[in-house]
Amino acid sequence: MSTLNIDAIEHACQRLINRFAVYNDLGEFDKLAALFSTDGAFARPTAPEDFIVGRDNILHSFTSRPAGKLTRHLITNTVIEVQDADHASAISYVTQFSATPGNPAKFGLKANSTQLVGEYYDNFVRTPEGWRIAKRSGRVALMLE
Amino acid sequence: MSTLNIDAIEHACQRLINRFAVYNDLGEFDKLAALFSTDGAFARPTAPEDFIVGRDNILHSFTSRPAGKLTRHLITNTVIEVQDADHASAISYVTQFSATPGNPAKFGLKANSTQLVGEYYDNFVRTPEGWRIAKRSGRVALMLE
Amino acid sequence: MSTLNIDAIEHACQRLINRFAVYNDLGEFDKLAALFSTDGAFARPTAPEDFIVGRDNILHSFTSRPAGKLTRHLITNTVIEVQDADHASAISYVTQFSATPGNPAKFGLKANSTQLVGEYYDNFVRTPEGWRIAKRSGRVALMLE
Repeated sequence: MSTLNIDAIEHACQRLINRFAVYNDLGEFDKLAALFSTDGAFARPTAPEDFIVGRDNILHSFTSRPAGKLTRHLITNTVIEVQDADHASAISYVTQFSATPGNPAKFGLKANSTQLVGEYYDNFVRTPEGWRIAKRSGRVALMLE
Repeated sequence: MSTLNIDAIEHACQRLINRFAVYNDLGEFDKLAALFSTDGAFARPTAPEDFIVGRDNILHSFTSRPAGKLTRHLITNTVIEVQDADHASAISYVTQFSATPGNPAKFGLKANSTQLVGEYYDNFVRTPEGWRIAKRSGRVALMLE
Repeated sequence: MSTLNIDAIEHACQRLINRFAVYNDLGEFDKLAALFSTDGAFARPTAPEDFIVGRDNILHSFTSRPAGKLTRHLITNTVIEVQDADHASAISYVTQFSATPGNPAKFGLKANSTQLVGEYYDNFVRTPEGWRIAKRSGRVALMLE
């Protein structure tokens, strides 16, 4: 596989990772679910064994949550390994800030003191639609309280 | 437009976004202003409606500020959408730390307790000089006090 | 040098920067040392004048440290300058969180209150093995206590 192909695959995977976080924070859950393959699986870092399977179920798991905290999931440190032309995996770091609506600060909302720092683990697959997340899980490494 | 072209455009835009933050923090304001098109516009996240228009005016808005806090603007989560061969847009997250000179810590300066987490919104344009920021604004999402 | 080459070089360097942080945090020190050229040099941001020279010595400096804190080094803002087909340099930001084993939080470990925000300065070289770190140093800009 040429270096060029690897770069393009890594770029496509990084795109999916960043979009997941932004769509999650902005409440664009249709777009978030479309980042997964139709049979993709997702487990939250705070419940790493509970896989939700299938794009529709992933969408439902987001849209059915009570509207609550504003979140910002900061994505850093993505390291991608390309297995072959159709498969890749990644680890990426996530740092979560949150705020509760109704608590204004000088600018924006007053952040909650809790911060979580953890990782996402992804498996990617090339589909007829392009690269998609086949399986995403995560864990929390440390927590600021 | 080929995938390859999109990758290259996104790469060029990511470069501009990262450089803005680093040049801002390091006080390299000539380089920062040169990231904009000559008629580029910029509004700070803390004053999102107040656009400064034109590279020279943007430069002046930075060089005329009283030298004050040391800042570090951490850029994450860039999501770029390519409209066509000459236009692209992006959202990126920014987390701002700051410190006041004269307050040494064990290493570096003692950080202020205030942190801001927000977003930049960019429109990019391809110019004869290469890709440049045509319009940048932002907002603060949440604030740690 | 074509734009394409510059993109590929920057991509290779970004890969090294992200991997250093992840391998460091996960204790994969063999992989970390292999990111350097055989005669590579490294100085920690907290001791920026003390260069450790040579891949083997860099490895030893990590494996010989007492196992202690869990760390997470968040990498952001990478700005790479390509000097020629065989040389590049970069600045990248690093934000360090840490936790002490044995202090569980609701999720993961309870984070220490100390956070460091600084920069890495890298020189990269193309070797027969591919791009490697020739020299890495750093500094702490500010510290949350």
